[in-house]
Amino acid sequence: MNINMRFFEHAERNNRSFYIYDLKATAGETVFDAHWHTEFEILYAECDGMVKLDAKEIPLAKDSFVFINTEQLHQTVAYANGRIFAMVFDFELLAFNNKDFCQTNIINALKTKSSLFPQCDSLDEALCEEIKRLLKSIIDVYYSNTPGYELKIKCNLYEIIFLLYSGGKFISYEKEKHYPLAQIDYVKKAVAYMEANYPQPVTIDDLARCVSINKYY
Amino acid sequence: MNINMRFFEHAERNNRSFYIYDLKATAGETVFDAHWHTEFEILYAECDGMVKLDAKEIPLAKDSFVFINTEQLHQTVAYANGRIFAMVFDFELLAFNNKDFCQTNIINALKTKSSLFPQCDSLDEALCEEIKRLLKSIIDVYYSNTPGYELKIKCNLYEIIFLLYSGGKFISYEKEKHYPLAQIDYVKKAVAYMEANYPQPVTIDDLARCVSINKYY
Repeated sequence: MNINMRFFEHAERNNRSFYIYDLKATAGETVFDAHWHTEFEILYAECDGMVKLDAKEIPLAKDSFVFINTEQLHQTVAYANGRIFAMVFDFELLAFNNKDFCQTNIINALKTKSSLFPQCDSLDEALCEEIKRLLKSIIDVYYSNTPGYELKIKCNLYEIIFLLYSGGKFISYEKEKHYPLAQIDYVKKAVAYMEANYPQPVTIDDLARCVSINKYY
Repeated sequence: MNINMRFFEHAERNNRSFYIYDLKATAGETVFDAHWHTEFEILYAECDGMVKLDAKEIPLAKDSFVFINTEQLHQTVAYANGRIFAMVFDFELLAFNNKDFCQTNIINALKTKSSLFPQCDSLDEALCEEIKRLLKSIIDVYYSNTPGYELKIKCNLYEIIFLLYSGGKFISYEKEKHYPLAQIDYVKKAVAYMEANYPQPVTIDDLARCVSINKYY
């Protein structure tokens, strides 16, 4: 995995930053293994591939994008050579100081996961094209060193959020929580347990106990 | 003066709000008398006229705009019938919660007046056209009742700020402070004094004392 990590704000290298990972995709190989994090992520592909998002497989094509909501398990395989850009940030990046409508009803709803981003297949073509244009512009300005590019990135993210919000495209958490994710939660718990205990050996018994299931499950 | 005042955020009707005044312009008449305020203002004209900004006269034409920096004395006369939109807000509207580069170096510099907005005559035509497009879109969305229009307004304001910042077009206060504004400061002080003492009669002696000049000045 070729990770070229750059920080959005050099003075703030904690969770509040905005990063773009420029990932090299090789046909038939994994671009990144299954993982998750508390930050939001947007993938922008320049080649064919597949993203596994929790239990769902989403195809990647040239100039396609995938929104990865916070804590979603995600994994990517390339079907062709190319590049995949992964933009990662915490919604705190977009928080307004003023507790106005924008902050309370839009940004905070994303931060607290009461609104989730949809996938491209539930959006009409014109909206997808507009989002692609805004994402491309984020990638271009990020690598451009234009003075104030940090503000342009926020502009485009707000514009994407506005387009989805005004079109009623955000998914409310209420709808989504019935999605059968029990197995994925087991995997997440097991991996978290292994990471917490590394480098100590972990047995199947330990894992079964940690996720509260029978070890023969 | 036909003022149709609408508030940007109904829950926050104090200085943090965003208003558009939709002003009726009548040929040969004053659209608004000289005044100033601590909020920033953008005029967008749909007819010919003239704005007096401190000591400087700026012509208005169809689809032209004028930035009125905080505390600038401004007055408008129409040369034709039409409408002039006045957008008024405090930079607090645009403040980020995160004290990142955008907040510290861009938004805060505007709020503290260490950066001032330029006028259209110092910008190239393509940039002026882009700013006009963004301002028109603000006016349209403000009157549209689109869900989340408040975020779109912020988007466009950030975009205008980004365009000016990346092009190095903001005027630093250092340059501007040598501008001979003494007389205008006298007028401001005198008007403030009259307002503070209204409805008591104010004499020339009182005013001269208040602004510390000779009454025969």
